[in-house]
Amino acid sequence: MLPQSVRDHLLARRQEHLAALKEFLAIPSLVNDEPGAAEAARQASDWLAGGFSSLGLDSAVMETSRRPAVLASSRKIPGRPTLMIYGHYDVQAPEPLERWTSPPFQPQVRDGYVYARGACDDKGQLFAHLMAVEAWQRAGGGLPLNVKFFIEGQEEIGSPGIENFMAAHKDELAADAVVISDSEFFAEGVPSITYALRGLVPVELTVTGPAHDVHSGIHGGAVSNPVNVLAAMIAGLHDANGRVTVPGFYDDVLELSEQERRAWGALPFDPAAYAASLGVAELGGGERGLPPLERRWSRPTLDCNGIIGGYTGPGGKTIIPSRASAKLSMRLVANQDPDKVIEGITSYVRQHQHPGTVAEIAVLSKSRPVLLDRHSAAMKAAEAALEEAFGRRPAMIRCGASVPVTEFFQRLFGMDAVLMGLGLPDDDTHAPNERFRLEHLWRGSQAAAALMGNFGAK
Amino acid sequence: MLPQSVRDHLLARRQEHLAALKEFLAIPSLVNDEPGAAEAARQASDWLAGGFSSLGLDSAVMETSRRPAVLASSRKIPGRPTLMIYGHYDVQAPEPLERWTSPPFQPQVRDGYVYARGACDDKGQLFAHLMAVEAWQRAGGGLPLNVKFFIEGQEEIGSPGIENFMAAHKDELAADAVVISDSEFFAEGVPSITYALRGLVPVELTVTGPAHDVHSGIHGGAVSNPVNVLAAMIAGLHDANGRVTVPGFYDDVLELSEQERRAWGALPFDPAAYAASLGVAELGGGERGLPPLERRWSRPTLDCNGIIGGYTGPGGKTIIPSRASAKLSMRLVANQDPDKVIEGITSYVRQHQHPGTVAEIAVLSKSRPVLLDRHSAAMKAAEAALEEAFGRRPAMIRCGASVPVTEFFQRLFGMDAVLMGLGLPDDDTHAPNERFRLEHLWRGSQAAAALMGNFGAK
Repeated sequence: MLPQSVRDHLLARRQEHLAALKEFLAIPSLVNDEPGAAEAARQASDWLAGGFSSLGLDSAVMETSRRPAVLASSRKIPGRPTLMIYGHYDVQAPEPLERWTSPPFQPQVRDGYVYARGACDDKGQLFAHLMAVEAWQRAGGGLPLNVKFFIEGQEEIGSPGIENFMAAHKDELAADAVVISDSEFFAEGVPSITYALRGLVPVELTVTGPAHDVHSGIHGGAVSNPVNVLAAMIAGLHDANGRVTVPGFYDDVLELSEQERRAWGALPFDPAAYAASLGVAELGGGERGLPPLERRWSRPTLDCNGIIGGYTGPGGKTIIPSRASAKLSMRLVANQDPDKVIEGITSYVRQHQHPGTVAEIAVLSKSRPVLLDRHSAAMKAAEAALEEAFGRRPAMIRCGASVPVTEFFQRLFGMDAVLMGLGLPDDDTHAPNERFRLEHLWRGSQAAAALMGNFGAK
Repeated sequence: MLPQSVRDHLLARRQEHLAALKEFLAIPSLVNDEPGAAEAARQASDWLAGGFSSLGLDSAVMETSRRPAVLASSRKIPGRPTLMIYGHYDVQAPEPLERWTSPPFQPQVRDGYVYARGACDDKGQLFAHLMAVEAWQRAGGGLPLNVKFFIEGQEEIGSPGIENFMAAHKDELAADAVVISDSEFFAEGVPSITYALRGLVPVELTVTGPAHDVHSGIHGGAVSNPVNVLAAMIAGLHDANGRVTVPGFYDDVLELSEQERRAWGALPFDPAAYAASLGVAELGGGERGLPPLERRWSRPTLDCNGIIGGYTGPGGKTIIPSRASAKLSMRLVANQDPDKVIEGITSYVRQHQHPGTVAEIAVLSKSRPVLLDRHSAAMKAAEAALEEAFGRRPAMIRCGASVPVTEFFQRLFGMDAVLMGLGLPDDDTHAPNERFRLEHLWRGSQAAAALMGNFGAK
């Protein structure tokens, strides 16, 4: 049980906490190559380090391969377990800007939500843990356990270099378990713990044809068209049953247990409402014949994230384009190995070369899937904490997205992890008008504080 | 035979003529929606009308559905035939600009060529006929026949509205034959007359999925991906033999005559050199098993001119895009009916709808294929004129591109047409660094003048 004093403090300080979060959200800490993005990352790191120091934690901003990471740790209490809290301050690119009701880096509160890029993913969620630390420090007689923070700035591009960074800082990062709030409730009113994530292998496929764009009337029929060839290569990546045709793609896929299948079947999931929430008439994608939750959570997929080639302005232009390219990403599930999948798609591209064109593939990053122990002490502590804060025992779910660091903690440190998501499915992460419900910020900070109490007492 | 005085005049006036052409080329008379394009079209029309007036022709700038057209006619000489000269002052968009050695609308002479957008297609070629008129007027004792000009400004987008315009101005446009210089030599040193053109049906195919971009990890596998769906639709438009699968596509195709097949087989065509000129390792595209010239000239094709959807910036973005679209264009050959082809592709799109997405097709324009009488008086006059100017009997060829007005003159006016192309295959029309060889401008103006003499004497 969370001490009443800690709970009261969190309730009393809501407006100050919201003001601080809005400061954090106003920093455009993009991890792409936009001008000013690197400076904003530095600003976000400094802001976090300042926050940790003011909470009495030792903190340091450290260089990684790309963006600074922030490490912090509380004064060591002997005999108490150590809980690591992971988060990321980098955010997805906000485009298309014209679809935002308020600008992505000018946080605005409307209808019980705070709207901004990163509001839910992940600044708002990680901030709940800072609120919890403050509440224990100021109103709970001090922290009930040892706390560490590891906040990185390149999660949205697959955390490149972070595995090496973690391997090089094993002592600083050592802990008994890690909690990550970078996921979401299964549904409105259904707090959830996520025990599996998909891995991610994004690649760029480029098809090059003529040395420059050529007249499609004069040459059409005699010259292979890179867009047509690229389209055929993408189309060939799925068979008629929606299965991915990359050689060996399903070889290592861990089949879903009957217990999980039953549990998922009992979740309050309405395919029609889900389709409506995304603005589609019906669900599609994935393998034919499987339930949507299995397709999202326990089956690997391949999606095209973007494509471009030739003339794309208004009206027409009768050319055969010189090149075309597509961004493809594969989501992997438990037991799949990114390197084997990369081998598979490389071999697919080699086998599908088309006369008069050259197809090339570039791997942008890779992260492994993760499947966590559903019965660890950290998991139990988080279940009780969510139940206390949100009034309902959490559902145990998987998530189709990736948080690469989860797997690093598990594999490099043998650490138990728990994904205690505080977002909602309609928070529009990665889309315009991303938001975070204020009620979830308040109760999320209670859950974070309760988790510290529960895990400290283990 | 061209009078020596006319020939001498053309030789003597080369630099003045080139200077005038460069003025014309400097006008960015785009037919797209770029700011200033409409004003540039007006400027190009006025420039032409001024030129015709100074040659003693009656001229008028007339409104059409989109861009002004310029009509001109010489003082009527009773008893002499009337030759119509058609051309277009609009030019293709110059993008990608960074690939131009000199800016597209700052004409530059290098290595015996004038470089500029429109240098060959079609400002340079049509200008040769103005030079011919001037030479007859100033040095030949007056024109040997009646001459009319019809220069339009929307050819590059398929001449929308021009058919109606022509039907409404039958008297002004009446003539015995029309000559069009908007095509090219078969090869270096091989003057050519083109007796068939392909028709063109450009369409835009759009696939819409979720109401906005959604997270490809969280939703991937449950939501149809508009890029994947579009790619599959494009891929399905060709079968394994490279045949277009649009229902009924080949139904009306006129088979090539044995005489033509033999004549084409005798043309100096080297597939490897042709491939090299385009920067491809080998030829591709079109129907398997057919010779390249047949695939370009006498077989219909379907090419993707451009495609766009989702995230196309640097790095990755893990989204399922809300929409994707492609510009497709079909080239039609003799006897194919654009309306039947439009019906076919509309039915293809209807039959290939994919759950959870909506595919829609918009027809951008349409033009019919054309097959001309190879034995008309105009054709014979042009054959002799090209032989006189370039020293070699022209080859009789087809062309895979479209000049919609050719078919309008034929169908609406029952007029004989001749396509006396003055360009070269490597003039890079529709591409960066478009150019026109100065030698072809000089000799082209002699050919234009000789054609007037030959046809006037018929």
